[in-house]
Amino acid sequence: MKHEILESIAKASDIKKLNNEQLELLCAELRDEIITKVSETGGHLASNLGTVELTVAMHYVFDSPNEPIIWDVGHQCYSHKILTGRDITGIRGEGGLSGFPKSAESEHDLFVAGHASTSISAALGIAEAKKIFGDENSVVAVVGDGACSGGMIFEAMNNAGRSGTNIIVVLNDNEMSISPNVGAMAKYLANIRSKEGYFRFKDGFEHFLLKIPFIGKGIHSVLRNIKTFFKDMFYSSNTFEHFGFTYLGPADGHDIKMLIRTLRRAQSIKKPVLVHVNTVKGKGYEPAENNPSEFHGVAPFKIEDGKLKNESGDSFSSEFGKTLCKLAEKDEKICAITAAMTDGTGLRDFSEKYKERFFDVGIAEEHAMTFAAGLAAGGMKPVFAVYSTFLQRAYDQIIHDASIEPKHVVLGIDRAGIVGGDGETHQGTFDIPILTTIPGITIYSPSDYKELENNLETAFSSEGVQAVRYPRDSEKAVPEKFRKIYGDSDYFKGEKDCLIIAYGRLFAEAAFAAEKTGASVLKIGKVFPIEHELIEIAGKYKNIFFFEESVEFGSIAEHFGKMLSESGFEGNYKTFCVKGFVPHMKVEKAMKIHGLDRESMIKTVEEALK
Amino acid sequence: MKHEILESIAKASDIKKLNNEQLELLCAELRDEIITKVSETGGHLASNLGTVELTVAMHYVFDSPNEPIIWDVGHQCYSHKILTGRDITGIRGEGGLSGFPKSAESEHDLFVAGHASTSISAALGIAEAKKIFGDENSVVAVVGDGACSGGMIFEAMNNAGRSGTNIIVVLNDNEMSISPNVGAMAKYLANIRSKEGYFRFKDGFEHFLLKIPFIGKGIHSVLRNIKTFFKDMFYSSNTFEHFGFTYLGPADGHDIKMLIRTLRRAQSIKKPVLVHVNTVKGKGYEPAENNPSEFHGVAPFKIEDGKLKNESGDSFSSEFGKTLCKLAEKDEKICAITAAMTDGTGLRDFSEKYKERFFDVGIAEEHAMTFAAGLAAGGMKPVFAVYSTFLQRAYDQIIHDASIEPKHVVLGIDRAGIVGGDGETHQGTFDIPILTTIPGITIYSPSDYKELENNLETAFSSEGVQAVRYPRDSEKAVPEKFRKIYGDSDYFKGEKDCLIIAYGRLFAEAAFAAEKTGASVLKIGKVFPIEHELIEIAGKYKNIFFFEESVEFGSIAEHFGKMLSESGFEGNYKTFCVKGFVPHMKVEKAMKIHGLDRESMIKTVEEALK
Repeated sequence: MKHEILESIAKASDIKKLNNEQLELLCAELRDEIITKVSETGGHLASNLGTVELTVAMHYVFDSPNEPIIWDVGHQCYSHKILTGRDITGIRGEGGLSGFPKSAESEHDLFVAGHASTSISAALGIAEAKKIFGDENSVVAVVGDGACSGGMIFEAMNNAGRSGTNIIVVLNDNEMSISPNVGAMAKYLANIRSKEGYFRFKDGFEHFLLKIPFIGKGIHSVLRNIKTFFKDMFYSSNTFEHFGFTYLGPADGHDIKMLIRTLRRAQSIKKPVLVHVNTVKGKGYEPAENNPSEFHGVAPFKIEDGKLKNESGDSFSSEFGKTLCKLAEKDEKICAITAAMTDGTGLRDFSEKYKERFFDVGIAEEHAMTFAAGLAAGGMKPVFAVYSTFLQRAYDQIIHDASIEPKHVVLGIDRAGIVGGDGETHQGTFDIPILTTIPGITIYSPSDYKELENNLETAFSSEGVQAVRYPRDSEKAVPEKFRKIYGDSDYFKGEKDCLIIAYGRLFAEAAFAAEKTGASVLKIGKVFPIEHELIEIAGKYKNIFFFEESVEFGSIAEHFGKMLSESGFEGNYKTFCVKGFVPHMKVEKAMKIHGLDRESMIKTVEEALK
Repeated sequence: MKHEILESIAKASDIKKLNNEQLELLCAELRDEIITKVSETGGHLASNLGTVELTVAMHYVFDSPNEPIIWDVGHQCYSHKILTGRDITGIRGEGGLSGFPKSAESEHDLFVAGHASTSISAALGIAEAKKIFGDENSVVAVVGDGACSGGMIFEAMNNAGRSGTNIIVVLNDNEMSISPNVGAMAKYLANIRSKEGYFRFKDGFEHFLLKIPFIGKGIHSVLRNIKTFFKDMFYSSNTFEHFGFTYLGPADGHDIKMLIRTLRRAQSIKKPVLVHVNTVKGKGYEPAENNPSEFHGVAPFKIEDGKLKNESGDSFSSEFGKTLCKLAEKDEKICAITAAMTDGTGLRDFSEKYKERFFDVGIAEEHAMTFAAGLAAGGMKPVFAVYSTFLQRAYDQIIHDASIEPKHVVLGIDRAGIVGGDGETHQGTFDIPILTTIPGITIYSPSDYKELENNLETAFSSEGVQAVRYPRDSEKAVPEKFRKIYGDSDYFKGEKDCLIIAYGRLFAEAAFAAEKTGASVLKIGKVFPIEHELIEIAGKYKNIFFFEESVEFGSIAEHFGKMLSESGFEGNYKTFCVKGFVPHMKVEKAMKIHGLDRESMIKTVEEALK
């Protein structure tokens, strides 16, 4: 497909010169570009295909960046990136664009996103600043219906509606977050959606009244009561109006004319407006339309049939799900909670097999954690399966609701450590530091599937908060002689006076490095609290190197070092952790940069032994 | 006043035997008991006086703990404590009761509380567990309208309404949280409140229809449509029904008969019910009724006029407010955000003087943080003033919204360190460990008012996230010779080979200990990142003792030790931190227990110098 219109656009404002036909052509070209490029690199697909017309209409109506567009989660901003002069070839790979909004890339990305439900808060801040500075430009937040299950949206709406700012919230309603949407808000939106005619009706009714010759303008004010009556009948149940927003919609999110008309109206109102837009996830690409969950975040695929270029195999997530099903069969008290990540956390089978013991609470990590503590208080054995980066949202709840009075809650922490293409906003490099602050917690970090299974069994038969964290990957092969024991911690003695300490998937790297260099390896299984026995083992060495996929301050390596010092250790102790925020790139590359891959380990050990 | 009825109650279920007159007398006795005891020890007063009738009615109707009552925040549970056999004499003091629900005290406290907005999540967990176990008992969550501004309530309601459990949410609507309530939800509730008659009306209407002889029962079903019409007119705008709850109310929260009738009805419905109760904060004690904010949490006072027994003087909070006003006068970009803590954080004057630059966002720390980042993105210089313990809620937002792409946001962290009477749920001992995990952050911990002022000035003229943390207290006197410089960090050389390191209010303790023992003192002002210069100073000593009001793992003491080790230090380095969760007791006592007071410091130093 030729991209004639697309190529004619040098800057976002060029869109404003296009006629309707050209706008529609532009949308077709954008879709083609997105499908082509994402099929090569992988990335978010269904969400991006759903927002093509909406993005074009927004750039047609608004003057970005003076009227900034703030994307919630940000996995629907590919069209926005393209229209603001960026090439999505190689997106999410090293040197390519980020898969999420990023200020460093463009002045049109005023605010980062990656976690859900933040956009209205951020946009309201910008809008209040504009109000103070006397700037009347609109600020637009685009938020999916899925993100509306997150409490921050409610907190922000509670403040935004009566703020007197020119904030426009565009509710991109595609009837699902990543998994199909749950909860009352989802049902509520479905209810509004089914009243599709009202927006047009209200418009038509006003026109109708104004056009009746005799009872026209004169009687207009008298009729306000009737209108109020109708408004009450159709609109009074509209939660958004309770929040103080003017509600416009629902508008067809693939009808570019209607979108432009609606957004223009929102822009002209000069007070908080909510624009409700219905979109279809995956729109325009049949495999994605039919299976939007699968095409939410996708690996490279063949365009003709949507099949993945490389079939994905097993993973820590899938093994977690399998083990959980096995345990749940034997123990009827085991139940599982996810925050809108049934597939991502490997819980699909569990959710079907143990329906009454499975809870998808929506994008609501805070609630999820306290809810888990409540289930435990009620006698159940809950596991909250959650990505490491999203668990950051529940830090206070782990302390306040599950630890001050200890509740037996298991945390299945997925995507722990470096995550790859998702980049800065999704790195699982903070869970170790924040969890180790919490009195009474136990943390496991298995290095392979068998250990994951053991850790989960132990976690369910222990007490208090039990965290089991594992990476996105599949398990890694290790040399034969490093595979003998599957205990909590394993110690492999080499011939040299040098010890490598690691846990989780870094153990495989450490094992290879040890085989090559003759160093010893200490694999920690239960990483916290640190067993004194391990300090004793380590204390015998002159050179110790601790490799860890965590930020430095608060890492196990730091805690281990403290205990080592206290035990009177006087040798050489060096830690290798993750520094700062890790941008999007392959996991292997990030490991190399931070000195965590086997080659770096070998070099480190060899230099010490010189 | 005699407490005849009260004394006749040995266990909560004894209430069920009382008649109406006795119930009302019981309420009067409870009020008398609460006013008397809180006037002696201090504590939460206004909220407790508001829930006397509600608590009596709940224990009359429900069978606690089989039908557990989960209190949100928990500062309204004194009547509940008394009725379940506990003596509130000396509450919040060492050896006395906790000021919040606590499982260890009673089987009637099934879930801890202290932070807002958690009760529905916890209750839903318990209710789902009951559902799975086939237990049909109700689970009751009592939540104030103020806590409804917190996103967790929304997340929980979104899951609870259609859960099919027997959860009853009692909305204790006193028209304010700690400060008068803000936001759309508050206005919405005010709107429902103003329709006070409807509950009775609806009841009356149904009775009326059933009683008309000819069109009585026969026509009842036909009339359903009319009833639906009325329901729509009066109830359809009820957000709670959108969430799937059956809505009952509003009921007069001081009419015990009406409360019992309403709660019985809720209990009988056997699906999620929301009971809306209007209460008056401070009810029955005039000073508290007239000034509920002041009597929310109160120091010991004289019953006759409500005046404090000891006038409270200046504090870090009040100095923070003063400094902020001064800075805001010179810089029009400075603005302030609070999460429902205008008075607590010392922002009252600022809020009146700089109305347009002041934002009380309600109990919504997550939103507050991202909103602050948005204000910064819009060109303002925001400070988010928040208690250390509540900042735990915004950890993810500090990372995701303010640090990945650095935003210049100042954090005014109040109640940092040990807090005293509030106990476990409110300790400010986690902020240092979690904040030091965040790349790019700067943390100050002033030891006196002048340093607080300097730190705030520096924070506002720097970049990125700048945290200034200070205790609840007033500043402490230090010996003259330790008062010479007000830099970021000060070093006071003593004659002995021993160094005490401290920051914040512990500096005063350290100074006294140094004066007594001849040790040197290093006061750190900018506590993070740690300056290498300080490591150099410390490195010269053989004995170093670091005293810190923080949990151990992730403390500055730990980070300092790591840097010290890396610099080749081979002396004796010992850290004194806070271990575990600190229960309610005087700050001074908690300091002593953790070895952080001057006497303990002196002992530590003297032993090392032996």
